[in-house]
Amino acid sequence: MIHVGVFGYGTVGSGVVEVLTKNEKVIEKNVGEKVKVKAVLDLREFHGDPFENLIVHDVKEIVEDEDIDVVCETMGGVNAAYEFTKMALSNGKSVCTSNKELVALHGPELINLAKKHNCSYKFEASVGGGIPIIRPLQDAITADEIKAVIGIVNGTTNYMLTKMDKEEADFNDVLKEAQELGYAELHPEADVEGFDAARKIAILSSLVYGKTVNYEDVHTEGITNISSRDFRYAKHLGKTIKLLAKFENRDTGSYAIVAPFFVDLESPLSNVNDVYNAILVRGNMLGDAMFFGKGAGKLPTASAVCADVVECAKNKGKHLPCNWEDESVKLDGFDNSVKNFFVRVKAEDRELTEEIFGEVEKVNEGFFDEFAFVTKEMTEADFASKKALIGPCINVIRLQK
Amino acid sequence: MIHVGVFGYGTVGSGVVEVLTKNEKVIEKNVGEKVKVKAVLDLREFHGDPFENLIVHDVKEIVEDEDIDVVCETMGGVNAAYEFTKMALSNGKSVCTSNKELVALHGPELINLAKKHNCSYKFEASVGGGIPIIRPLQDAITADEIKAVIGIVNGTTNYMLTKMDKEEADFNDVLKEAQELGYAELHPEADVEGFDAARKIAILSSLVYGKTVNYEDVHTEGITNISSRDFRYAKHLGKTIKLLAKFENRDTGSYAIVAPFFVDLESPLSNVNDVYNAILVRGNMLGDAMFFGKGAGKLPTASAVCADVVECAKNKGKHLPCNWEDESVKLDGFDNSVKNFFVRVKAEDRELTEEIFGEVEKVNEGFFDEFAFVTKEMTEADFASKKALIGPCINVIRLQK
Repeated sequence: MIHVGVFGYGTVGSGVVEVLTKNEKVIEKNVGEKVKVKAVLDLREFHGDPFENLIVHDVKEIVEDEDIDVVCETMGGVNAAYEFTKMALSNGKSVCTSNKELVALHGPELINLAKKHNCSYKFEASVGGGIPIIRPLQDAITADEIKAVIGIVNGTTNYMLTKMDKEEADFNDVLKEAQELGYAELHPEADVEGFDAARKIAILSSLVYGKTVNYEDVHTEGITNISSRDFRYAKHLGKTIKLLAKFENRDTGSYAIVAPFFVDLESPLSNVNDVYNAILVRGNMLGDAMFFGKGAGKLPTASAVCADVVECAKNKGKHLPCNWEDESVKLDGFDNSVKNFFVRVKAEDRELTEEIFGEVEKVNEGFFDEFAFVTKEMTEADFASKKALIGPCINVIRLQK
Repeated sequence: MIHVGVFGYGTVGSGVVEVLTKNEKVIEKNVGEKVKVKAVLDLREFHGDPFENLIVHDVKEIVEDEDIDVVCETMGGVNAAYEFTKMALSNGKSVCTSNKELVALHGPELINLAKKHNCSYKFEASVGGGIPIIRPLQDAITADEIKAVIGIVNGTTNYMLTKMDKEEADFNDVLKEAQELGYAELHPEADVEGFDAARKIAILSSLVYGKTVNYEDVHTEGITNISSRDFRYAKHLGKTIKLLAKFENRDTGSYAIVAPFFVDLESPLSNVNDVYNAILVRGNMLGDAMFFGKGAGKLPTASAVCADVVECAKNKGKHLPCNWEDESVKLDGFDNSVKNFFVRVKAEDRELTEEIFGEVEKVNEGFFDEFAFVTKEMTEADFASKKALIGPCINVIRLQK
């Protein structure tokens, strides 16, 4: 019998208890022995909840319980979660988490701590919710040089952009609606400014490198500037707009970026709508493989946490290695990376703009107060210096190839 | 140093040599030691080929070479491949294959033989080419009851159906073109009659059950009856037509089917076009996760074979377990499975048809020589008995939910 402790009885934590209970039989078959939740740490009481008798208020009741083999950290945040995770790992208990902030911030340290104590630190649920992506990246795509990882990894912004695309709605209206539906938080900055996606691409690209990509080094732009006019232009060009979290490993250097991109309707990423997520992995031999599914939500995320529990339970007393070292990767390829840029400037800036950018592809959507165009392929550095000459643009959106 | 032997220097086999050579460094990093091709078995000579000095003509030069740890079986067919695979496994050499016929026919026996000799039999490349699907199904989606696997797993037919959809072309013209391009074989039955897809869904559903689903037990219909008119009707209904390979695990029993289906344009499967493949896995907690990529082709398929080589190399001397027993699964759920059916009959059969099927959704596309409709939800058995009463239909296509 494998005993499980859970840190945090919120959305994902209660999902974990539900999955481990409802799918008891299939999990027992996959592990080879029974898996049972023994204790759930939460400060609150849950009177009337079917698992109320499992609730404990002191972390020691889990980390010092010799019966408990695996802990699910589903409390979120970094302070207490970090301390509690270290306590569990130091006592030889594997920890399975959905906490992307903590993984992005302290992943390699926690993996090393787990190694030292013959247990594991697993985080499949930290990116892409229920979609298996961490495991395929580590265990399945192992004969390829990974040239790029391109993800739609934030459900809130994808829901909003899908809505803006289909209903020609404006950002603020869609945000308000998403907040009312509970898809966006009252303080939505982490989502709409791209910070959440930046943490996730930092995790994925760290796994590609085996070294740490700091999320502060991800060039991050959110979707707050995207308007219904941008979608009109996108449609005109046979494209849509997606917030992409990308990592590219090029001869000219590597870089990571989170930003809204024009995505061609022929790309499989263009059809990833609503709260769905997808992660496309580009190998030098494999070509493009894409992993698609529910990027958030109680049960899909809990399913991924519990799949990690299954693996830890099958490997009790052993460390499951993870190739992610503390050493930082230098991402020096952003300035030299080459793209086409879609640019909107005020009508009166047209002449100056044409002078500076030379030959461009004009995009006429009948808005006479502005001038819109797509640049030739150019480096980020070249674009930035040209843009500085024309002053403030209405908007700039990169094109995804 | 890990030494690799290759059976068959055809498309996939030469791809394997190319991947192991070109990606030598990343593979060494992932394995922890160098991996090198030592010998390639083929009856032919390859004068001028950069690897011609590795070619051997006697299988013993591989299976009796004590240096060789892993063999890639990329020769296809069942007779020689079966014998050679057994020889390799009996000598403790792991075998990684892309040979779906052999896996569907002798999978559990070869897994057991590998177990007995402390080596492994791996077959990621046998389904979905380069797409990681076998490994996620076995190692990643382990906390879910898998309710369904729905795949577009045959590139030839998907190429043809995409072409018929986009160009309103007819089956025979598209087949001819596909043959000229080398996408379809001169004897295309294995593809267009659905047999290839049936083998693949038999493999995937065997892994879900841990027991053998015989491919002869898969209800198999091909695409040879699909015409441009069917696509006209599909468009009218906001759908397209895909050859789906499905396995469903329902309370009323399980069944596997390969057949053309009307797929809603909202479904992620509807956008899987040309030679791309996708496999959707439906878990009771996870919901739908989909794996998408190149389902065939030299390098994508070789990439999957080589990922298996990496895993075998990392686990030299150990058996990598695979939960697939020889015992057969009884698939008794087909007759009771419930669907909507799209039916076309001759105009003169309309009255009789309406009498027999009762209330139906008529689909009027302006073809006055026929009557087309979608039935209410009904079981396969109920549909079959009603259909028997009206005699031959022009065509019947099931609707995918």
